[in-house]
Amino acid sequence: MRAEVVHELREILGRAGLISEPGRLLTYECDGLALLHERPELVLLPRTTDECARALRVLHREKIAVVGRGAGTGLSGGATPVKGGVVLGTARMRDVLEINAVDRYARVQAGLVNVDLTLAVEELGLFYAPDPSSQHACTLGGNAAENSGGPHCFKHGSTTRHVLGLVIVRDDGSVLDLSRPAVDPVGYDLVGLFVGSEGMFGIATEITVKLTPTPAVTETLLAIFTDLDAACDSVSDAIAARLEPSALEILDKLTIEAVEASVFAAGYPKQAEAVLLIEVEGAEAEVEMTLAELSRIVKQRGAIDVRRARSAAERKKLWAGRKGAFGAMGRIAPDLYVADVVVPRTKLRELVAATTRIAREKRLKLANVFHAGDGNLHPNISYDRRDADEVARVLRAGEEIMRVVVAAGGSLSGEHGIGIEKQAAMSLVFGDDDLRAMCRVRDAWDPEHRMNPGKLIPVHVCREMRNAERPR
Amino acid sequence: MRAEVVHELREILGRAGLISEPGRLLTYECDGLALLHERPELVLLPRTTDECARALRVLHREKIAVVGRGAGTGLSGGATPVKGGVVLGTARMRDVLEINAVDRYARVQAGLVNVDLTLAVEELGLFYAPDPSSQHACTLGGNAAENSGGPHCFKHGSTTRHVLGLVIVRDDGSVLDLSRPAVDPVGYDLVGLFVGSEGMFGIATEITVKLTPTPAVTETLLAIFTDLDAACDSVSDAIAARLEPSALEILDKLTIEAVEASVFAAGYPKQAEAVLLIEVEGAEAEVEMTLAELSRIVKQRGAIDVRRARSAAERKKLWAGRKGAFGAMGRIAPDLYVADVVVPRTKLRELVAATTRIAREKRLKLANVFHAGDGNLHPNISYDRRDADEVARVLRAGEEIMRVVVAAGGSLSGEHGIGIEKQAAMSLVFGDDDLRAMCRVRDAWDPEHRMNPGKLIPVHVCREMRNAERPR
Repeated sequence: MRAEVVHELREILGRAGLISEPGRLLTYECDGLALLHERPELVLLPRTTDECARALRVLHREKIAVVGRGAGTGLSGGATPVKGGVVLGTARMRDVLEINAVDRYARVQAGLVNVDLTLAVEELGLFYAPDPSSQHACTLGGNAAENSGGPHCFKHGSTTRHVLGLVIVRDDGSVLDLSRPAVDPVGYDLVGLFVGSEGMFGIATEITVKLTPTPAVTETLLAIFTDLDAACDSVSDAIAARLEPSALEILDKLTIEAVEASVFAAGYPKQAEAVLLIEVEGAEAEVEMTLAELSRIVKQRGAIDVRRARSAAERKKLWAGRKGAFGAMGRIAPDLYVADVVVPRTKLRELVAATTRIAREKRLKLANVFHAGDGNLHPNISYDRRDADEVARVLRAGEEIMRVVVAAGGSLSGEHGIGIEKQAAMSLVFGDDDLRAMCRVRDAWDPEHRMNPGKLIPVHVCREMRNAERPR
Repeated sequence: MRAEVVHELREILGRAGLISEPGRLLTYECDGLALLHERPELVLLPRTTDECARALRVLHREKIAVVGRGAGTGLSGGATPVKGGVVLGTARMRDVLEINAVDRYARVQAGLVNVDLTLAVEELGLFYAPDPSSQHACTLGGNAAENSGGPHCFKHGSTTRHVLGLVIVRDDGSVLDLSRPAVDPVGYDLVGLFVGSEGMFGIATEITVKLTPTPAVTETLLAIFTDLDAACDSVSDAIAARLEPSALEILDKLTIEAVEASVFAAGYPKQAEAVLLIEVEGAEAEVEMTLAELSRIVKQRGAIDVRRARSAAERKKLWAGRKGAFGAMGRIAPDLYVADVVVPRTKLRELVAATTRIAREKRLKLANVFHAGDGNLHPNISYDRRDADEVARVLRAGEEIMRVVVAAGGSLSGEHGIGIEKQAAMSLVFGDDDLRAMCRVRDAWDPEHRMNPGKLIPVHVCREMRNAERPR
C-alpha cells in the first residue's frame, strides 16, 4: 500500500485506529479457523460510523479489499484476509447507544461484546438471548455477520431473530441507516439479508437488537449416561413429547475428560460416556412439570444419575464446562477444528456415530459436543497444524462429515457460517443457478468484490460470473 | 399481446390455465385495495413449477410484465397489475407435497389456502401458526410475498418466521430450488429476503413451512370496556407485566356495531365502547395463571365484564367476529380502506386517538380493529369508490396516519406490505441511499423490472436508478 494512503487513513482514524507494525498484524492473520492464515496489509480500528465511512471511501478509491472483524472468534475463516488487503475491526466501537426497556430493544455499536449487552440490561429484568460459547469475547457485529447461535437459541432462535435494525457502511463508504426497530421489515428485508452475509455486503457499525424478558425461573439438570446413543435418543424423545426446554446440550466422553482436566471443570463425572445438560425456563409451575417429564425420559433411556443445580452458582458451573469445552480441548492437541452441521433431530444417534467413524478411519481424535435440541452437531477434531499430513486428513474428514450429513437430509452449517471452510461444500446443497442468484445479490452490494473477497461463493461460480453471461 | 404468444402460452398451460375473456379478466383488476385497478392483458394459472417456468420463459422473451397473485386478498395493491401485462395466479397449485410430523415441516404448492394447511396437519397435533383474518381464502404464496401477519403472530411471529424454504421461478423462467428446510439459512438468506418482496423477485411455486405443535390448552377471554382508552391501557399494562398471551385484539365501537349487525355476530355487547379479545395458550397451570393476571389487569382498568369462552364453539364464535370484522364493515359503506401501521406499544392510546381525529377532520367514518399486542393498528375507513372527492379524502387520511405514526417512532406497515398504497410513504422511513440499496437488490433479481412493476420503490428512486449513476 502506498505510504500516502496509510498516512491518509491515519489522519482519519488517529494513531490508535491504525495498526501497521508486522508484529501486531500477526494477530489478524486468521480467526478461530487456524487451518488457513494470511497477513493483512493494515488493520483499521475506527471509533465511529463516520470514521468507518471515511476510511472506506479511501479504500474504495484505492480498490483495496476489506475484511470485517469482530473479536476473531469465528470458526469458518470469515475474518481471515485470504486475499490480503485491510482488516477493519470493530474493537473500538463498544458503546451502548440506547436502551429502551419498555419497547425492549437496545441500539449498540457493533463491537460491543455479546455478554456486555446482557450485563448492561439485566438489572432491568432483560437479557440478550443468543449466547454463543464465545459470548465473553465475541461481538454483536460478528454475531450478525455470521448469524451466530448458542445453546439457548434452541428456544429463542439465532441472531437473525434478534436483529431489528442496522447501520451499514457500504463498500463505497456510503451509509445505510436501517436502524429504526420494526416488528416487521418494511420493504425488502435488507436487515434480514445482511445478517449472515459474512462481511460481504459491508460493515455494520450499529445494531438494534431485541431484548428478552428474564424468565421468572431457570432450572438446570445434568443427566449422566454410560452410553452416548442413549443420550441422543432421550433428546429425540423429548422433542417427540413436545417438551420445550430452553437448551439441550450433549457432551461426549472425550469432551468431558478434557473439560474436567481444565480450569472449566464442572463436576461432570469422569466415568460418564455422555452428559446431557438441560435448561428449562419459564413460570414456576410449567418449569417443574417440564423438569419432571424430562427426568422421566432420561431415566427411561438409562441415565444413571440426574442432578439438579441447587443454586445459581451450581448452574453457572455446569454451564462453564459446556461453554469452556472448546477451550478445554487445547489439552488434547494444539489446534482444534470445530465442525458445524445440522442433522434431522430424528437421526442424531446415527449421524453422531457416523462422525466418530469418519474420524477413526482418518486416525483423528474427535470429540462431540453439540446443541442436541437443534440437531446442531459440533464434531471437534484435535490436531497439530505443523503436521501437514494431519491437516490434510482433518480437511478430508470435515468434508466427509458434510457429505454424510447432507445426504441424510441435514444442512451444511448451523451457526458458524460458510467462510472459507465450507465454500466448496456449498455445491452439495445448492445448484449453480442458486449460487448464481447469490452472486447477483452480492453484486448489488459490492460490484467490485472487494468486501471479504474469496468467501462463501464457490470459486467456479465466482469465476463464471465475472464473465457476465447475462445482460444487466 | 400477439395472438401467437397467447397460443403458445395456451399450449403450455392448457385451456384451464389461461384466461383471456374480458369479462373474466375483471376479477383480476385489483386485490383488496379497491382504490386502484387496471385490467391485465391475460391471466395465467399454471398447475406446476414446470408450467410456470415455461410460461415465464415466453414472457421473458416477449418482455411482458408479470404480476403474481394468490387469492387477491392483499390490502396494499400488491396483486394489482398497474402497468398492465399478465397476472400469474397460483389458484391451481394447491397440493400438499410432503408432511414431516417429526421434523415438523410441510412442503406445499404456493396456492394452498392458509387454513387448509392447518386442516391437513391438525390430526397430527400440529398447526400452521400465522393466521391472517383472510386465512380461509388467502394462500401461503401470497402470505410469503407480503410477509403476512395475523392475531396469533403476536406470539408466533409473522410469516417470515415460518418459511423454511422456497422454490422460486425467476423473471427469465429459471428455477431456484431453495426448498431444503434448514434451522438456519446456509449462505446468504435468499429465502428470508424473498419473503416480503411482494412478487418483485419472481414467483414462489413451492413453500416449505414450519409446523407448530398444537398447544395443550387454549383459552379465550373477552373483556368489555366502556372506554377505548382503557382497553388500550390494559394492553400496555399486560406487556409491562411481561404476560405472554398468544393474541391481544381490540375492536372499537363502530367495529362492534358492524360485526353484531352481520353474519359474524359474536355476541359482543352493543353498549361497549371497545372489547379486548385475549387468547392464552400453553400448559394448563401456566394458562390459568396468565388468565388470572390478565383478568385482574383489565378489571383494574375498568372493564365492566370479563367473559371466558366455555367451549371450543364459544371460542370460535368470539374469533369469528374478529376475523369477520373487515367483511362486516361492508354494511357501513360499499368500500373499505384498511390501513396498517405499527406504533410503539406504549403509545397505543395516543395514536389510536390520532387516527380518529384525522378521520373526523376529513369527514370520514373510521373503525379501529387491531393487533394491540404488537402495536399493529388497522384504522379502517369506509367509503364509496364512486365518490371521487371521498376517495381523495381517504387517500389523504391514509397518508396523514402514516406521517403521525412514523413521527411517533412507529413503522409504515405491520403485515399488509407496501404495494402501491405506501410506495410514496417509503420516503418517510428511508433515505434515498437506503432506497437505492433496495433497487440494486431488485436489479439482482429482475434487471428488466418486469416482475410486479410499479410497486414498493418510490417512483423518483426508480427513475433515477434507470440512469445508472454507478458503474456496474
